[in-house]
Amino acid sequence: MSPRHDICSLFNIKYPIVQAGMVWVSGAKLAAAAANAGCLGLIGAGSMSPELLDQHIKKAQKLAPGKSLGVNLPLLYSKIEEQIKVCLDNNIKYFFTSAGSPKKYTSFLKEKGAVVVHVTSSPLLAKKCEDAGVDAVVAEGFEAGGHNGKDELTTMTLIPQVVDTISLPVIAAGGIADARQMAAALCLGANGVQIGSRFMMTKESSAHDHYKKLLQDSPSNATELCMKDLVAVRLVKNEFYKKVKELENNCATKDELKNLLGKGRAKKGMLEGDLIEGELEAGQVVGMLNDLPTANDYVKKLISELNSLALQFSYPTEGES
Amino acid sequence: MSPRHDICSLFNIKYPIVQAGMVWVSGAKLAAAAANAGCLGLIGAGSMSPELLDQHIKKAQKLAPGKSLGVNLPLLYSKIEEQIKVCLDNNIKYFFTSAGSPKKYTSFLKEKGAVVVHVTSSPLLAKKCEDAGVDAVVAEGFEAGGHNGKDELTTMTLIPQVVDTISLPVIAAGGIADARQMAAALCLGANGVQIGSRFMMTKESSAHDHYKKLLQDSPSNATELCMKDLVAVRLVKNEFYKKVKELENNCATKDELKNLLGKGRAKKGMLEGDLIEGELEAGQVVGMLNDLPTANDYVKKLISELNSLALQFSYPTEGES
Repeated sequence: MSPRHDICSLFNIKYPIVQAGMVWVSGAKLAAAAANAGCLGLIGAGSMSPELLDQHIKKAQKLAPGKSLGVNLPLLYSKIEEQIKVCLDNNIKYFFTSAGSPKKYTSFLKEKGAVVVHVTSSPLLAKKCEDAGVDAVVAEGFEAGGHNGKDELTTMTLIPQVVDTISLPVIAAGGIADARQMAAALCLGANGVQIGSRFMMTKESSAHDHYKKLLQDSPSNATELCMKDLVAVRLVKNEFYKKVKELENNCATKDELKNLLGKGRAKKGMLEGDLIEGELEAGQVVGMLNDLPTANDYVKKLISELNSLALQFSYPTEGES
Repeated sequence: MSPRHDICSLFNIKYPIVQAGMVWVSGAKLAAAAANAGCLGLIGAGSMSPELLDQHIKKAQKLAPGKSLGVNLPLLYSKIEEQIKVCLDNNIKYFFTSAGSPKKYTSFLKEKGAVVVHVTSSPLLAKKCEDAGVDAVVAEGFEAGGHNGKDELTTMTLIPQVVDTISLPVIAAGGIADARQMAAALCLGANGVQIGSRFMMTKESSAHDHYKKLLQDSPSNATELCMKDLVAVRLVKNEFYKKVKELENNCATKDELKNLLGKGRAKKGMLEGDLIEGELEAGQVVGMLNDLPTANDYVKKLISELNSLALQFSYPTEGES
């Protein structure tokens, strides 16, 4: 089985692995560590001012000289154009855009020589991405920690449908942490994987130690996709989650949910370690993560396990016994 | 990669494939067709009186003499003990139980020489199944059409966790229709797969022709998991679904939902073809099914595609360029 596309060439990386850009979690340190380990390292710009983004990019480039670094940009962010300028000024080549129309900036970025990847959660949006001229898509399943689409398509059903709909490279995301899951994603037709929660659960991520400890001990049902009518997010089941559920179970309005959410809750939870009042975002796969390796040790183990897998079927067909 | 367990031996079948027992859809005709194609064919007893079940078993045994046939028994059914008696009287050996405690009948059935498999949606319940002495489990992800667990674990995250929790054979279900998905499930550590919606979409299933036609033309987001507080079911988005959603969006009580549901809606929809007022159950994967082969043609194609897949990784490790 040879993939239709080589994303290692597209991103100039050793392994077909993208470390997901995550708010509050993937700054310079994690992106550089992932890049040094042979992956594409993404800085999550969604939680950064243009000034802070500038600092993180410069720092990451210093920590991982010559390695492949990119930025994840949620397009709904008000200072998005300043952020794009910061990236271009720092010679960032790899742009992962999400939460907005792929039509908006793709041509502009491509003219500047960038490689543009858009995040999608449905075959329909994947087609729009292709029409907009992106270089690849991330197809993200329901189990992902990121912002999911309304259709709730899981990685298992989403990836083959996206692969059958477009002819671009497809990067699978959602529920991928170990070699079994990466191999499964490649079987589904993906050309590479984007890994979020597992990279959040490494020494170099900026997630607070308390948060990492909580996730290390969390059960398989640690998360639930919530606030679907506002902005869908997969929440870890803490006290804040309980308040959200209570509102949702009582048919709260969007405004009531917005009021509860307030400002800065994700920062409070994930970066500052307030496990009670903070908003804690994670993928469903965190239930099976119970250690905290360095990014490099994790990637080495993943690749070694992947190389030891071999899948070859020879079931008897008609006529054979 | 060799599986830990050989479910072909366990069920005396050619391929590690179980055709799911589905209400109103998998009677004698489908179970026999699947069994004749080299799979384990299951009669879905959940929609049958003991008398009707008796007829279907006898008919299936006549249509597929000497082949492997079993029954899916939802344990919450009021006439469950009569159904079990009917199965044993007809020398049924393979029992797939669901919707109830695996402790209740497993010992009894095992003493009668049966092979008992219980359906689970979490690693925790899988452990209880193992403790109850079952021979294998079906681990069913969120994307399945069957009744899903509250934890909403997808096939991608569920299977590896169940495999790591118990030492029994694990049969993956949810989102599996083509060779890519079957290979992915085996990569995740499953020893075989249970396939539902794809078998519903064959010539031999008892689903009404109108229903099959609707699904053939349905988009990727054709279904949604609904009625989670009552009895979770993945509904096709028809007029009845809209009424359910309206109630749910208005925080309806369980009784209001029960009243809307009434009696016989699933039969009306799936068997009798009332696409407006009927309850239509299906897995998320139906969005990618757009033909209607015989069960045998489908299985032949699946196995041929599976045999042509080969997965072998040789990524460079540290030190290599």
